[in-house]
Amino acid sequence: MKFSEYFISTLKQEPADSDIPSYSLLLRACYIKKIASGIYTFMPLGFRVLKKIENIVREEMDNTGAIELLMPAIQPSDLWIESGRWYEYGPELFRLKDRNNREFCLGPTHEELITSIARQNIKSYKDMPINLYQIQVKFRDEMRPRYGILRAREFIMKDAYSFTSNEKDLDEIYNKMFNCYSNILNKLNLKYFAVEADTGLIGGKYSHEFIILAKNGEDKIVCCSNCGYSANYQMAQYNPRQEADSLKRMQEQEILEIKEVYTPDKKTIKSLSGYLKVKPQDIVKTLILKNDKNDFFAILLRGDKELNIQKVEKFLSVRLNLVEDKNNLNGLEIGFLGPVKLKKDIRILADYSIKNMHNFITGANKKDYHYLNVNLNKDFTIDSWGDFSYPDEKDLCIKCKSQLKFEKGIEIGHIFKLGTRYSEKMNATFLDKDGNLKPIIMGCYGIGISRILSACVEQLYDEQGIIWPIKIAPFLVNVIAINIENKEIFNAANEIYLKIKNENLEVIFDDRNVSAGIKFKDSDLIGIPIKLIVGKKYIENKKVEIELRKDKTKLNLDLDSAIDYVKKYSLTNSF
Amino acid sequence: MKFSEYFISTLKQEPADSDIPSYSLLLRACYIKKIASGIYTFMPLGFRVLKKIENIVREEMDNTGAIELLMPAIQPSDLWIESGRWYEYGPELFRLKDRNNREFCLGPTHEELITSIARQNIKSYKDMPINLYQIQVKFRDEMRPRYGILRAREFIMKDAYSFTSNEKDLDEIYNKMFNCYSNILNKLNLKYFAVEADTGLIGGKYSHEFIILAKNGEDKIVCCSNCGYSANYQMAQYNPRQEADSLKRMQEQEILEIKEVYTPDKKTIKSLSGYLKVKPQDIVKTLILKNDKNDFFAILLRGDKELNIQKVEKFLSVRLNLVEDKNNLNGLEIGFLGPVKLKKDIRILADYSIKNMHNFITGANKKDYHYLNVNLNKDFTIDSWGDFSYPDEKDLCIKCKSQLKFEKGIEIGHIFKLGTRYSEKMNATFLDKDGNLKPIIMGCYGIGISRILSACVEQLYDEQGIIWPIKIAPFLVNVIAINIENKEIFNAANEIYLKIKNENLEVIFDDRNVSAGIKFKDSDLIGIPIKLIVGKKYIENKKVEIELRKDKTKLNLDLDSAIDYVKKYSLTNSF
Repeated sequence: MKFSEYFISTLKQEPADSDIPSYSLLLRACYIKKIASGIYTFMPLGFRVLKKIENIVREEMDNTGAIELLMPAIQPSDLWIESGRWYEYGPELFRLKDRNNREFCLGPTHEELITSIARQNIKSYKDMPINLYQIQVKFRDEMRPRYGILRAREFIMKDAYSFTSNEKDLDEIYNKMFNCYSNILNKLNLKYFAVEADTGLIGGKYSHEFIILAKNGEDKIVCCSNCGYSANYQMAQYNPRQEADSLKRMQEQEILEIKEVYTPDKKTIKSLSGYLKVKPQDIVKTLILKNDKNDFFAILLRGDKELNIQKVEKFLSVRLNLVEDKNNLNGLEIGFLGPVKLKKDIRILADYSIKNMHNFITGANKKDYHYLNVNLNKDFTIDSWGDFSYPDEKDLCIKCKSQLKFEKGIEIGHIFKLGTRYSEKMNATFLDKDGNLKPIIMGCYGIGISRILSACVEQLYDEQGIIWPIKIAPFLVNVIAINIENKEIFNAANEIYLKIKNENLEVIFDDRNVSAGIKFKDSDLIGIPIKLIVGKKYIENKKVEIELRKDKTKLNLDLDSAIDYVKKYSLTNSF
Repeated sequence: MKFSEYFISTLKQEPADSDIPSYSLLLRACYIKKIASGIYTFMPLGFRVLKKIENIVREEMDNTGAIELLMPAIQPSDLWIESGRWYEYGPELFRLKDRNNREFCLGPTHEELITSIARQNIKSYKDMPINLYQIQVKFRDEMRPRYGILRAREFIMKDAYSFTSNEKDLDEIYNKMFNCYSNILNKLNLKYFAVEADTGLIGGKYSHEFIILAKNGEDKIVCCSNCGYSANYQMAQYNPRQEADSLKRMQEQEILEIKEVYTPDKKTIKSLSGYLKVKPQDIVKTLILKNDKNDFFAILLRGDKELNIQKVEKFLSVRLNLVEDKNNLNGLEIGFLGPVKLKKDIRILADYSIKNMHNFITGANKKDYHYLNVNLNKDFTIDSWGDFSYPDEKDLCIKCKSQLKFEKGIEIGHIFKLGTRYSEKMNATFLDKDGNLKPIIMGCYGIGISRILSACVEQLYDEQGIIWPIKIAPFLVNVIAINIENKEIFNAANEIYLKIKNENLEVIFDDRNVSAGIKFKDSDLIGIPIKLIVGKKYIENKKVEIELRKDKTKLNLDLDSAIDYVKKYSLTNSF
């Protein structure tokens, strides 16, 4: 491909609406063009990369035995009403009416549609297991589209849906998909984590997220470098650290008698610990949650810990809200709450972080008073123990008690064990070996094709521009003629370009009549892995210069060695 | 691929809503599944064929130097308001609003979007010529979706848009696209015509349609087997035949005097010719057309000819309506109209079909009267001559005067010279060599990917099912084990399957425990080009039977010869 005949126009300026480096770089290097908020065109360069990612995903999916099909983007509302999601999904679902006023949506995902196909074509356990996938455009009317194609309203994704007659087959396909996604990310040579995750709106009982590490990522994950445990921050279980001086005190200090103290206006952990000259870790804080039926729950956490409502909701299997307003508090004293002499109809749940505390401080359920020397079992009892808080840097791995690590990243894939959530509602059943009608067991497995593209850039860039993994770089080599007005140089560069092209290597020839400096800058911005520079040196002593994008390595080689070098480089798993 | 692990369930019954053979066959053979009116899923078999068509189209497009990108399906209304089509397009455009009440449509075509990109990226004549294309899902809310995926509301298409600074470059790209589409259809070994066509809603000044021949096709085309002229029925020009007896009479009979005759209530050509005992070809009929400004036009046609209003509209460059209601006739006598003594402010246009008529019959512009022996120039004069009628089976080629032929077919591609229709409205300009700002000259080129799929079936099927062109058959070979309960046969068939698979031939192994009869029927319905049958003969004397789908040719060969045969067959351009 000749640069002059291609369709690239790079921008020097940072785009006005740039909110993350990958967006800015993809715009500036002419990979994408914004059409409307959250809606983009993949320009020729972007399309090349997108297609390569798609092909890698397809190859790995086919290797697992999954079968490709293509469902429509437009989905009739009836199916979504059957599953219950027509009303659940909210304004993220793009809805439209046809000329006959029938309601449709643009698919953000295809559980309903594939289940409607499965219930027609799957009759018996003999028709399963089967795993069907598609690579397709998806739509989601994001409240706040941002970060370019990372959180777009129209995007490309691969979604797969498995149908099995038993849990064992589901596990097998789930594991295959886990390995498939790992293979995809390994091929791209990306740093990533596969973490346990929440199942969210899709529903189901078990899921993993695949997170590409990137310092600007929206997703926070927790991992253990010792045993390999990892989970997303929301879900992560952990062993709360034992504070060294608390432990010491516990060994040295006896259990003391509870004592009321006057703590005027000290409603926060910060003000209280300052006033009493103790650490937040010596205080137990009490928060009140309320469900739809006006049942109240008290959650006890160590003073330095943050409540994770989702964990409590999961524990109680009920939606909860934090009660912060005094009016809702049933006469309880906000800022001075505690488990001792709490109203009897409030169930007390304790976070594991308070497990080994003693002689601690709590509110006295009385305005401007706290208790000192409160002790579990002696002064109050706990209804249930659980993990209701977020880990922090000093906490320990739930599995091996090693120090935890925190990373940021971008979720690009999500696999779910759905179970019978959709098949039951939509009556997708099969006859088992004994002739009994049972709901089909489902799984679903998504990976974002356009998301991988931007997440790649987010992990791999520098001040000059993008650094693509070899396997998805739009071109492998950029032949740069230093000065095309010098006919000797231009002709030599053109010949070299054709020679490399004949080797079936993906090459672009920057034949523009612009300065070498501009050509170098554009090449680095676009992120082509290898520059092959043809200038006076080549005319004088037949040496071309090779420069690698990833680390600026420079080599002066004769042409044949240079082509050999490029060929070998193309087979590596490098950048 | 093993049949038992694949996702096919064929139907014996004709689907209730089947309206054309291809739809019925594609449904029955499990290529597509209906989701809603005009909305389909491409099942795994259908997806395989779709992908192959897509790849052929992509390869041929890339060979022309066109560059692929991918635009969004959702398009903001602003761009369509700029081009004027937001209001022109009518209810075929799927429209929707986002959560902020902004208006969008789902692209039925992408002239507006690509022009908005071009006006940003193309600044100078040096940035052109360029031809950009995409392969993408398109949406059209058809009034009456029908014929399965042939007239669907969501479909896959390849659309290309060229940008040039001069007409010569446009011509060059147009010709490349013409050849590209011809190559695609030749690769598929289909019978087709490329015909001159009308430009319709897209606009522009010159276009060709590519029509795949099929007896159930909606498009009628006219062609000449002598000189190759072809055009769609609406557009076709022709030389009206000379009736042998009219010609004879003309040579023998003198010009006679005009004579009024009483023709009570004879308002139609049929009733008049019966009453006067003449042929319709001896009568000249007069029809009145009216424009928006209430100007009237009289069109004269030979009695057996049908008016083509579009041709008159094109001739006069004005929208016209046929005046059929007496109240609108300005006092003229419907059923008894004629050019003699017609009101003076009515312009008289004559179709070429009356050119050599003499002593003919016309209305006398008086209730219940006609004239006999009317003659051109003697009794009236004509303002303009033109081609205002449809050709029929006896008419002659406009170019070489050979007999015309009529064919039916399905339009699968359309190429247009758009000129500056969009660039002027949307202000897409460039600086020419002399520094003048000019509108970009555009072309657009569409081919229906999913349409080709169904049009193929519509051209190539028989009572047993589909007959695919080799290049897009979902599988090349079907290995059929006559009886899988016979372990010897099953194992032999399985080995043969693996051997063919290792040769990188696309093979499916029908390993189902059903009768050989069902397997044969399904294979023929699906349309796999080659059946390779493994039964007792193979166990006894190592012969497999090969049967070709297209003509039932049967061969008994040893395995190696059979595989050789399949390999060679795969390289042909056959069915």
